Order: sequence, then C-alpha cells, then structure tokens
Amino acid sequence: MPSKLRHILVLWLAIDAVFVCGEYKDENLRKDSDFPNDIANVAVWRKGKKNWKGIGRQYNNPPPPEQGAKMARYIVHNSEWASLGSISSLSKIKGYPFTDVFSISDGTLLNSTGVPYLYMTPLDLSSKNIERDNRCSLSLSLAQSNYCQKNNLDPEDPRCAHVVLTGKMLKVKKGSEEEEIARSSLFSRHPAMKNWPKDHNWFFAKLKIESICLLDYFGGPKYISVDDYFNVKI
Amino acid sequence: MPSKLRHILVLWLAIDAVFVCGEYKDENLRKDSDFPNDIANVAVWRKGKKNWKGIGRQYNNPPPPEQGAKMARYIVHNSEWASLGSISSLSKIKGYPFTDVFSISDGTLLNSTGVPYLYMTPLDLSSKNIERDNRCSLSLSLAQSNYCQKNNLDPEDPRCAHVVLTGKMLKVKKGSEEEEIARSSLFSRHPAMKNWPKDHNWFFAKLKIESICLLDYFGGPKYISVDDYFNVKI
Repeated sequence: MPSKLRHILVLWLAIDAVFVCGEYKDENLRKDSDFPNDIANVAVWRKGKKNWKGIGRQYNNPPPPEQGAKMARYIVHNSEWASLGSISSLSKIKGYPFTDVFSISDGTLLNSTGVPYLYMTPLDLSSKNIERDNRCSLSLSLAQSNYCQKNNLDPEDPRCAHVVLTGKMLKVKKGSEEEEIARSSLFSRHPAMKNWPKDHNWFFAKLKIESICLLDYFGGPKYISVDDYFNVKI
Repeated sequence: MPSKLRHILVLWLAIDAVFVCGEYKDENLRKDSDFPNDIANVAVWRKGKKNWKGIGRQYNNPPPPEQGAKMARYIVHNSEWASLGSISSLSKIKGYPFTDVFSISDGTLLNSTGVPYLYMTPLDLSSKNIERDNRCSLSLSLAQSNYCQKNNLDPEDPRCAHVVLTGKMLKVKKGSEEEEIARSSLFSRHPAMKNWPKDHNWFFAKLKIESICLLDYFGGPKYISVDDYFNVKI
C-alpha cells in the first residue's frame, strides 16, 4: 500500500476510534463496575464494528477485587486464549511441566458457561502429554488484553489480575449436547477454526476445574470455590 | 475527564499515531526481515515516545519461519512476560502442572542475552513449587503482542508463533556480575520493580534452558538446539 494512502487509512480508523472509545467509561475503572452491562457493551461493539482490529478486546470495568469469583469468571470469559500446563511426555524432558498456548472459549460472547473449552488435535504436544496424564492447568491474565498496559501495571503486578484453573482435561463426548455448546462457543469466537485442516482429527476438550487460584490485588492469592465460580450470574 | 476533552485527547494521540506507524514497513510482514534494525526501531520508538501506551509493543518483521533459532530469540527478547509452568506443591493439587504469569527480560532493549531472567519472591506460589522441584517451562507467544490480531491470526494458529523453553529455574547468585545483568535487564524494562515492597525478599532467577520447542508456521514443532539459540547475533 502506498505510504500516503496508508496514512489516510490509519487516520480514518483513528478518528473512528475516538467515537468508539467515547462509549466506554474507562475513567471509572473498577469503580461503579457493572459486569453484565460491560460484557454487553463489548458484544455490541464487536458486532457493530465487525471485529475491527484497531482496538482489540476491551476489558472495561472488571469487577472490584472483593468479588473474586466474578473476577475469575470475568477473566475466563474475556480471554481468547490461555496457557495450558501439562506434564511433558517427551523423552528429553519427561516429567517436566510443559506450557503451551491454546485458544479457548467458555461460551459465545453473550453466554458464559465458566467451562473453558479447547479445540485440540492428537498432533499437539500437549495432547500427547494429556493422553498419558490429564492433570492440567490453565492460566489467563489481564495482561493478555491491553488493560494492564493501559493502566501502567506491570504484568507481574497483582492488580494485573490473573487466574490459574487446575483440574483434569477431558474430551467432550462426540455427538453430545455439550459438543454443540463447545463448538458454538469456540467457533463463534475463533471463526478460523471452522477451516482448520480436516485431517488433523480435531476434537473438543474441556478443563474439569478442581481448583481456582486468583491473583487479584494485594494480599496474596485467593482460592475461589468451584461452586462460587459457577454460581456467578453473567 | 470531561467527555469532549477526552475525545480531543484521544484524537490527538490517534493523529500522532499515524506518523509513528508510518515509520514501520508492516506491509512487508515477514518479508525482507531485518532483525537487528527492527529491534533498533522498537527501541527508538519507545525511547522517543517515552513508552506511550497507545500502540503497545511492536512486533514488526519477525524473522522468516526458516530461521527458527532467530525466531525463538525474537519472541523471548520482545516479550515482557511469560507463562511459567512448575509442578504444584499445594496439597490439593500436588503434582499437577501449575502455570503462572511472570514478567521477564532477557536483557536491556538493545542487549539480548537469550537468558530469561525473572524477579521472584519466596511468597509466590511458583517459588514454593520450585523450591521442591525446579523443573520449569516458560511459554511465550506473539499473541501477547498485537501481532496476531493485527494479522488476523487466531492465537492457536501456528503462524502466531510461540516458543516453549524448558529447563531448571536457578537463583542468580547475590552480588555476582550476573545479578547486575539480571537487575539491569529487568529493571530497565519493568521500572515498577524498583519500588516493589522491600519486605518480600525479592531475588533474581533465570531459566537454565535445556530444551527449546518452537511452534512457528505449519509442519509441526521445531526443536531448536540450545547452542543455535545462544549463537544468534542480535
């Protein structure tokens, strides 16, 4: 693209952004938070702008630190991907923890289930690990959005909240109702998945959560009960 | 901030961004890549703009897929944080893989050592895990920047490259020359660290890399030799 044309295009997108940004109350960050409305705002924005990539995902008004279960759900629902920890089965590093990147979804944009679904192939190193030992963890951080950078928070700062979910990775039963939920959750938010190579034997998987560790604000980790986590209404 | 004033401010920043963006050749993505110049560009931009937060870190012109060692170094050097995998020592999930978020640095912006340094406190859950078993992994992905979103790549797409470093986590010896390297590497890129609470007994740690697994482009993982990785000139 010629340099001048690019400048004009970027300028147009930038001016457009002013009005899009104007819809958000990001000066009220983590005050007067309204969780359901916030999620709805994101959805409207994304739908209206057809996933315009200039801003990226929005993390406005996360719930306040005292609402740990809600914050854990907030991070999981708003994250497009997570770091998956498994136990390595590779001979050179057998038994070592192994971390890898996976796209996730806990539901369509307007329907959060709290269950992190993944789309996996037996070709993945992590899949091979999980075949031998399905104990896993998923970590998800606000650092994955622009929230922490925008608020000048170092990724390791406890206010740049993150959550670690630990449990067993299970295959979602083929042909089940849950498989439809997993498919719509993942494919609606990762549309490219629909076209991934057919010969890779993709399957849906979910983390059956046993333990939830939230790092949000000062004072050390908070352990969220699995019941409280799933009881959050979104 | 009043709404109109915010609009004017965002517009000013946005127009400013047009000229900043104009310095980059992002239409030549992963072609004509010039690794050292790219890093230098990032440095100049960050210095000149005093870490202005409107754009975030830049990942222009990553090296081409056939240069695996360089790509691994590129991801490590450009990442502000990583997911650290360790083996849990918490009674409820003992032996499970545990993943957590840590700020990292492999050097000052203009000096990449390839060694990922961390700033840890014995209060961290991961530190407690590592005290019992120091086998670890670090995963770092281009999804942490805006590179993948900008190029419409799903975080799980193999072109949204990521690298998994596996090895042992070691404390950097207090008072050593290496501690100075770790300090300047981390504190220059995570300036907030200087002011973290003194009573947390912070220490510098590094991953002694034993295995490097790179996911970049199609065709499955590539195993990069540790020697090749450290021999990359930046």
